[in-house]
Amino acid sequence: MIRPLRLGIAGLGTVGTGVVNIIRNHAGMLQLRGTCPVGISAVSARSKSRNRGVDLSGTAWEDDPVALATRDDVDVFVELMGGADGPALAATKAALAAGKHVVTANKAMLAHHGQTLAEAAESASVNLRFEAAVAGGIPVIKVLAEGLVGNRITRIMGVMNGTCNYILTRMETAGLPYEEAFAEAGALGFLEADPNLDVGGIDAAHKLVLLAAVGFGTRVDFASAELQGIGTISIEDIETAAELGYRIKLLGVAAMGDAGLEQTMMPALVPCNSPLGRLEGGTNMVVIEGDSVGQVVLRGAGAGQGPTASAVVGDVMDIARGIRLPVFGQAAASLVKAEPARSSARSAWYIRLALRDRAGTLARLAGALSEAGVSIDRLRQKAHANDSAPVVIVTHPARRTRIDAVLEAISATGDATTPPIALRIVEM
Amino acid sequence: MIRPLRLGIAGLGTVGTGVVNIIRNHAGMLQLRGTCPVGISAVSARSKSRNRGVDLSGTAWEDDPVALATRDDVDVFVELMGGADGPALAATKAALAAGKHVVTANKAMLAHHGQTLAEAAESASVNLRFEAAVAGGIPVIKVLAEGLVGNRITRIMGVMNGTCNYILTRMETAGLPYEEAFAEAGALGFLEADPNLDVGGIDAAHKLVLLAAVGFGTRVDFASAELQGIGTISIEDIETAAELGYRIKLLGVAAMGDAGLEQTMMPALVPCNSPLGRLEGGTNMVVIEGDSVGQVVLRGAGAGQGPTASAVVGDVMDIARGIRLPVFGQAAASLVKAEPARSSARSAWYIRLALRDRAGTLARLAGALSEAGVSIDRLRQKAHANDSAPVVIVTHPARRTRIDAVLEAISATGDATTPPIALRIVEM
Repeated sequence: MIRPLRLGIAGLGTVGTGVVNIIRNHAGMLQLRGTCPVGISAVSARSKSRNRGVDLSGTAWEDDPVALATRDDVDVFVELMGGADGPALAATKAALAAGKHVVTANKAMLAHHGQTLAEAAESASVNLRFEAAVAGGIPVIKVLAEGLVGNRITRIMGVMNGTCNYILTRMETAGLPYEEAFAEAGALGFLEADPNLDVGGIDAAHKLVLLAAVGFGTRVDFASAELQGIGTISIEDIETAAELGYRIKLLGVAAMGDAGLEQTMMPALVPCNSPLGRLEGGTNMVVIEGDSVGQVVLRGAGAGQGPTASAVVGDVMDIARGIRLPVFGQAAASLVKAEPARSSARSAWYIRLALRDRAGTLARLAGALSEAGVSIDRLRQKAHANDSAPVVIVTHPARRTRIDAVLEAISATGDATTPPIALRIVEM
Repeated sequence: MIRPLRLGIAGLGTVGTGVVNIIRNHAGMLQLRGTCPVGISAVSARSKSRNRGVDLSGTAWEDDPVALATRDDVDVFVELMGGADGPALAATKAALAAGKHVVTANKAMLAHHGQTLAEAAESASVNLRFEAAVAGGIPVIKVLAEGLVGNRITRIMGVMNGTCNYILTRMETAGLPYEEAFAEAGALGFLEADPNLDVGGIDAAHKLVLLAAVGFGTRVDFASAELQGIGTISIEDIETAAELGYRIKLLGVAAMGDAGLEQTMMPALVPCNSPLGRLEGGTNMVVIEGDSVGQVVLRGAGAGQGPTASAVVGDVMDIARGIRLPVFGQAAASLVKAEPARSSARSAWYIRLALRDRAGTLARLAGALSEAGVSIDRLRQKAHANDSAPVVIVTHPARRTRIDAVLEAISATGDATTPPIALRIVEM
């Protein structure tokens, strides 16, 4: 008789219910593939009485997730409660201390406590796995930590927040201003309780810093990530970008260069007809570039019950199969604290300005660009609105520091009626 | 002192040299990630004297790959010779019998002997891994066997032969007839010694049947795969497809349905603006559909030194990390012998006919379609060439059996001057 792998699942929302369903419905298949049965010993959630459409009558109930995590009949603690701290963190720590494996979908907790938790897991010789925390159903952590392990990873890019993609798409296709598209997303239940997690890029940046840690062998460093939300994007930006052949996406870029580690989560222009530019709705995409493999692109559903549960079960099955790996692909103690760096890569930039209608503004703008050594690929001035002329510049490839210098110089002239915006143009 | 993992590499062509390079150049990184050093004990190749640009002075040489595979100082036999039988098969069998792990890039060997070799590996409790055999640098076997293990896989599609993609692209962009594009591919060294491996779809079908075995838990069954090469595709087909919004790709489809397992490697029409339709050159794409995850799309280089070596090293590192998995994702003895089935899925079809210029042909064609219950979405008759009128029909979704009935009926009328061709239209 082979001993089953026994799960304790904390959190029975959409994802938790999905995990229960897969384990119940595919028991035979999972046993064949995992060499042992996978069972659910106990569960925990906020409300015991809520009807979730799954039969939990034969499963023990715990009100306290910490009690669940440390039960004798639990081998793997499956943390699906969410939240960077609080019960999720307490129960995860308790599980690791009790020598239980942990599988979690909690990007916020790992982005903030990844190093501590990885050290705890490794000193207890258990797994802490988090495939479901990044890009939903796409097994990107596995691809990065295992499949592409022979590569020096140079760059990771990702569109990993479906809500932002939804809002930008609605602005584009229905011509809604940002505020209306945002309200619509809220009405549809797409927004987190704190909407800034979505539209401020925080949720997507949580995912990006986890990818960076695995890809570059660095300590998770959310504090150094540079974030810019999508709230400053106007319909005009989206329309102008489209005229130029681009779409605006909330794009994460993590790159390791001579100056250190760049981690940015910002709106960027990507070519309409590129894989990134063609993404719609909740579909996520991660682009990984390595020194041997070149570019690998992964696309799939970034959220939702089935895809996220698929990732959780993948992690559970790795444990059932006896796979034991360091949390971030190499021993936590060997992860390097990377120097945070602004992007040193040259790229073209989209600069949007609103310039006062007075003498010499265009000359001063041209002067600021010239002074910073930034040359213009295309410039458009549209019809005046009130006393302000909308000007869009597409630059030739330039480093970010030079673009920052241009923006500062323009602000110093007093010619701009609203703060200028610069968005990176990412070709692929 | 941690014991190193010691490799014996047979075959020092492009891929073998690439593997040596990664292991030499990234020794420190691999040790950090793999928890032990990876070294090369011995190598074997056809010519000892050839300059490969890598220093092998400290490495033992074996003329005989079987001797290499069974050396006491070899833990992992890396088979990069190729060929379904002969020395590759002999050395692989010898390695497994001697209790050595095997990593191979040899799709032909596995397509023909996968079940036997898997049984041998599993009875010796060693790994037999083949990530490099399918889709080059894309870690698709890992994604399918591990990341998506919680899914009932429903369909796998892939464009996995760069040479065919090259020929079709040259026909499209340079207007070359098939024969000229084929000759050009040969001159560039893109064709296998037996070109039918490429253009006949055999090489790509080898990959497809391995994916099917892993995805569906079935025994590798190359003999039942249906193959149709690209040699029947004309410039006119490519042009007409483009006018209709499609591109022609050599597309593999493996699907498990009620009737059994479909495995087809055939030219198909895919939408120009879909991920499959936008593939260029040697880039491969694999689309995996599972009951929980939905659709996952993977894109990357399908061949070449770096990408293929990346996949080989990924497998080696899994072994260094102590990962032990059944060859096809579940015990070889539990793999089912699937009933081969023709496609039961309904799809639209592209039918190209050359009809004799005589009375009643179009009526008989319409009758054949009507008789088979196939309705027409679009029909085009182009200008006559000689006594023959080129007619293209796009059908509404229909099962393959009905399309076959149409083709037979048309052939029976004697109206067709050349054999009619039907290509599936695959939306995504």
